[in-house]
Amino acid sequence: MSKIQEAVLIAGAWRAAKSTGTFHAENPATGEKLPPEYPVSGWADCDDALNAAAEAAVLLRAAPSEQIAGFLNRYAERIEARKTEIVEIAHRETALPKSPRLADVELPRTTNQLRQAAAAVLEGSWAMPTIDSKLNIRSLFAPLGPVLVFGPNNFPFAYNGAAGGDFAAAIAAGNPVIAKAHPSHPRTSQLLAKEALAAVRETGLPPATVQMIYHLAPEDGLKLAADSRLGAVGFTGSRAAGMKLKAAADVVGKPVYLEMSSVNPVVILPGALAERGAKLAEEFAGSCLMAGGQFCTSPGVVILLAGDAAEKFIAGVKEKLEATPPATLLSSGVAKNLADGVTTWQAAGAELLTGGVRAGINKFANTLLRVSGDAFLASPEKLQTEAFGNASLMVVARDAAQAEKILAHFEGNLTGSIYSDTRGSDDELYTKFAPLLRARVGRLLNDKMPTGVAVTAAMNHGGPFPATGHPGFTAVGIPASQRRFAMLQCFDNVRPHRLPPALQDKNPNGKTWRLIDGQWSQRDVGA
Amino acid sequence: MSKIQEAVLIAGAWRAAKSTGTFHAENPATGEKLPPEYPVSGWADCDDALNAAAEAAVLLRAAPSEQIAGFLNRYAERIEARKTEIVEIAHRETALPKSPRLADVELPRTTNQLRQAAAAVLEGSWAMPTIDSKLNIRSLFAPLGPVLVFGPNNFPFAYNGAAGGDFAAAIAAGNPVIAKAHPSHPRTSQLLAKEALAAVRETGLPPATVQMIYHLAPEDGLKLAADSRLGAVGFTGSRAAGMKLKAAADVVGKPVYLEMSSVNPVVILPGALAERGAKLAEEFAGSCLMAGGQFCTSPGVVILLAGDAAEKFIAGVKEKLEATPPATLLSSGVAKNLADGVTTWQAAGAELLTGGVRAGINKFANTLLRVSGDAFLASPEKLQTEAFGNASLMVVARDAAQAEKILAHFEGNLTGSIYSDTRGSDDELYTKFAPLLRARVGRLLNDKMPTGVAVTAAMNHGGPFPATGHPGFTAVGIPASQRRFAMLQCFDNVRPHRLPPALQDKNPNGKTWRLIDGQWSQRDVGA
Repeated sequence: MSKIQEAVLIAGAWRAAKSTGTFHAENPATGEKLPPEYPVSGWADCDDALNAAAEAAVLLRAAPSEQIAGFLNRYAERIEARKTEIVEIAHRETALPKSPRLADVELPRTTNQLRQAAAAVLEGSWAMPTIDSKLNIRSLFAPLGPVLVFGPNNFPFAYNGAAGGDFAAAIAAGNPVIAKAHPSHPRTSQLLAKEALAAVRETGLPPATVQMIYHLAPEDGLKLAADSRLGAVGFTGSRAAGMKLKAAADVVGKPVYLEMSSVNPVVILPGALAERGAKLAEEFAGSCLMAGGQFCTSPGVVILLAGDAAEKFIAGVKEKLEATPPATLLSSGVAKNLADGVTTWQAAGAELLTGGVRAGINKFANTLLRVSGDAFLASPEKLQTEAFGNASLMVVARDAAQAEKILAHFEGNLTGSIYSDTRGSDDELYTKFAPLLRARVGRLLNDKMPTGVAVTAAMNHGGPFPATGHPGFTAVGIPASQRRFAMLQCFDNVRPHRLPPALQDKNPNGKTWRLIDGQWSQRDVGA
Repeated sequence: MSKIQEAVLIAGAWRAAKSTGTFHAENPATGEKLPPEYPVSGWADCDDALNAAAEAAVLLRAAPSEQIAGFLNRYAERIEARKTEIVEIAHRETALPKSPRLADVELPRTTNQLRQAAAAVLEGSWAMPTIDSKLNIRSLFAPLGPVLVFGPNNFPFAYNGAAGGDFAAAIAAGNPVIAKAHPSHPRTSQLLAKEALAAVRETGLPPATVQMIYHLAPEDGLKLAADSRLGAVGFTGSRAAGMKLKAAADVVGKPVYLEMSSVNPVVILPGALAERGAKLAEEFAGSCLMAGGQFCTSPGVVILLAGDAAEKFIAGVKEKLEATPPATLLSSGVAKNLADGVTTWQAAGAELLTGGVRAGINKFANTLLRVSGDAFLASPEKLQTEAFGNASLMVVARDAAQAEKILAHFEGNLTGSIYSDTRGSDDELYTKFAPLLRARVGRLLNDKMPTGVAVTAAMNHGGPFPATGHPGFTAVGIPASQRRFAMLQCFDNVRPHRLPPALQDKNPNGKTWRLIDGQWSQRDVGA
C-alpha cells in the first residue's frame, strides 16, 4: 500500500483504490514490466461501486433516451479524438498490430458499436413494446440494474468492459456499468474510462453511470456477481473463470451472460477440396493465424474426409503456416495455455505436423496437428480442448458415416462452417452434416471462415453451452444484445399518464416499432 | 411391482412403467385414496423417454408448421369433446369446483392457449426472423430440443405438463415434450395425454412428440434436468423444488424456466381507502379467497398506511373472510404448508386477526394477520414467506417513509398492485412507491387485483428472482413464452435454398413479420 498506485473510477471520480495489492501490465513483445503499478481492488471498492451504481440505476431509468444516446455518441467522438494515443498504448499492452488491426479495424468497430447503440436508444424498438389495446395490458423490456462487465484479453477496445459490446448494450438498455478491466491492458482501459467519464459529465448522466476497477481477488469477483444490488453480469473469457461466475450468479437467480470457449469446427467437403482445395488451404491458414489465432471465432478444428484431396489440403495448410512468421501472443499466460492445449491434443492421439514449440518471447510456432476419426471418437472431449492461439487440428474421418458421428460428438460452439462444391456435388453430404452442426452452433456459415463477426442485428455471437451459458442470447448485434440486460415489465390497467412513453397510445417518436394487437407497427394506438 | 399399475406414455405407446414404486391420488374433499395405483418411474423410463424425444426432436425440426399447428388445434378439439369426463375427474382429484372454475374458465383457457399457439406457428412471427440483406446474414429462433415440463398442483389443465402453457409453448416452438404430471392429479393428466397422443397420431407427428410419466424420485428428476439429450426445462411449483432443479440444470448450462413463489404485494393508498375502502375490502377478499388462494398470483401481502381508513379496511376484509366458507384445499400437503406459513408469520411478530386453524378435511379457516411496519422491517424475509392458500397479511406502515422502506425490502414477485384515488390525491405517493415496486415485479397493476392472468402477447407472467429464475421471460403469453424454448440460430452466407423458409427472400406465407434491414415487415426481401 506504500507504492503510488493508479486511481480507480468510482462514483464519478478517479480516486485512490482501497486495494489489497498491486499488479503491473507487461509488454508482450519484450516480456518487460510496464509501469506504473495498478491496484487490486478489495471488497471496499466493490461495495462503494455497487452503492453508487444502484443510485445511478434509479436515475438512469428516468433519463430521456436523447441523453443516453447523446452520451454514447459523444463517447465515440472522444475515443476517435484520442485515437493515436489509445492505439499506441493498446499496442504496447497487447502486441496487436497498430495497423490495420487496432487503428483501422477494432477502434472503428468499437465506435460503430457505440453509435449503433445510440441509434437504437433513440429509435426505441429494442424494448419490443407490446400492447393489447383491448385489455389495456402493455409490456416492454426495461433496465435491469447495474451491469458488471468483465472484458477479455483479446479485444482491448471492442470488448473492453468500459467501451465494448457488453458495455454499449448495457448502457443502451438504460443501465450503469461497473467495468472490470482486463489486467493485461490496464492503461488502455483507463484511457477509455477517462473519456467515458468526460462524456458522462458533458451529457449530464449520473456520475456513476460508468465505473471501473482494474483487478480483483477471484472471491471478490464472485461476491460481486451475486450481490443483490447488481442487475446482471456480462463476461467474456475462459471457461474456468466463466463457470465460477455463473455458479455464483445462478444460485441467486442473477442473469449472467458468458462468452466462453469455442473451437469453431470447419467442415470441408470433398467436392469443395476438388474444386478449390489450394484456395481453401490459403483461406483457412489466413483465418487461423489472424490475430495470432486469438479470436473467440478462430477455426480450431477442421473435419475432412480421408483421401488425396484432404492430404493435399493439409499439406497446403502446413506450408502456409510454415511460411508465415508467428505473431506475438497477448501474454505469457496465453502462450503457456496454448502450449498446454497442444500437449493435451497430442496426449489424446493427435500427431504434430508442424510447430508445437516456443519461437521467441511470447511466441509459439504456427502449429498444425492431425488426428484420425477413430482417435477423435475415442477422446472427443480432450480433442475439443480450446487451444487459444495459432494452433489448429485436422480431424480426418474415414468416411461420411464416421464424420456424422464426429459431428454428433461436438459440444456447443459459437460457429460452425461448411464448405461445399459450388456445382452441387456435395449437396447430399451437406444435407446429412448440416443439421448435426446446426443444432450445436450459434452461427452456421457456408463457404466462409468464422473469424469475421459483423456488427448487425442479424448476427448471433452466441451458441449452446459451453460456448455460452444460454443459447438464446447474442453478445454482438444491436438490438438483441441489449435485451440481455433488461427485464420484462408488464403494465396491467396502469393509468395512461403513468405509462412509460413507449407504451402510451401515442408513438413517442413516430419511429418505435411496437407489437400492437399482434401487428408490428410505428403508428399510434387506435390510429 | 406385483400390483397392476397404470401405463406411462413413452415413445408413442402406453406401456408398463419400469417403476421403482407406486403412489395413488387422493380425493381432497374426503381425504380418501383414489384408485388405481400409479407408477413412480425409475431412471429406465426417463432414459427411454429421452432417447425417443431426441429422435422426435430431429424429425420435428423438419415438420411443416401446418402439421404442428394442426396437432395443437386437433388436441384442443379433442379436449373439448371429452370435456365432461375430464372436468369430472379433475374435480375429484383437486376439489376445484366444476363450474365455473374447471368447466367454464380453466378448460376454455387451456384450449384457447393451444389454439393461440397453433395460430402463432402458422404465422411464424414468434421466431423473429431477422435479415441483413446486404451482408446476407440471417437469424431466427429455432427449436431447442426436448422440453421437460413439470406441471404444478393448482392448475390441472392450464399448466398441466401435457396440455398447459409450457406444453403449448414448447410444442409451438417445435420441440417434443416430456411431461412430468403432478402426482396429485394423475388421472386428469392421463386423460389429457391420451387425447394428445390421439391428436399426434391423427396429424402424423413423430410418435414421441408427447410423452408422460406420473412421478419420479427427486434424484431422477435432477438427472433428467441435466441430461445432454434435453433442450430445456419448464417448471411451475415450489421454490425448494425449483431451486434444486435450477442448480442441476445450471451447472450444465441447460436453460431452465421456473415459476416459483410470489406473495404479490398490494399497496392501497390512503386516498383510495377514503374514496372506496368498503368496495376495496370486498374486492381484496374476493381475490385472496379465489380458488382457495391457490393461485401463483394470489395477493398474499397488503401494504397500508396507518390510520382509521386502514383499520376500517382491515375490519372489512376480516368480516368478508369470516362470512365466507373456506374452500377445500388441493391436498393435505397444501393444508400443512399453509398452516406452517401462518405459523412462520406469527413467529415473526404478525398478529392473527381471524382463522389460523383447520376447519375440516383439507380445509383451513380463511385467515388474516396483521403486522406493523417496524415488525416487518425487523423480519422482512420471514414475513415474505409464501403462505400458499387462503391466508393474507396486512402490513401497516407508520408513514410513507416507512412504506418506502418496506417496498425496498421486497424480493422479486410476479405481480404488484397499487390502488390510488381516482381523483389524484394519491399521485404524490404513487410517484414515490411505483418505481420501487416496478423494479421488483413482472407485472404492475393499477386499481386491479393480480389474480386474473390474461393470455395475451402483452402479458408477463414472470418477474425477478425468486418469483422466477430470469426476469426476461414470461410463462404466459404467446409468442414470448415460445422463445424460452428456442435457440438463436444465425445463417451467415448460407446458400439461399438451404435457408429455413422463414429466412428465404420470399416471405413464406406473406404473414410472417420479419426484421429486414432494421424494419419490421411482412414483405419479401428486396420487394
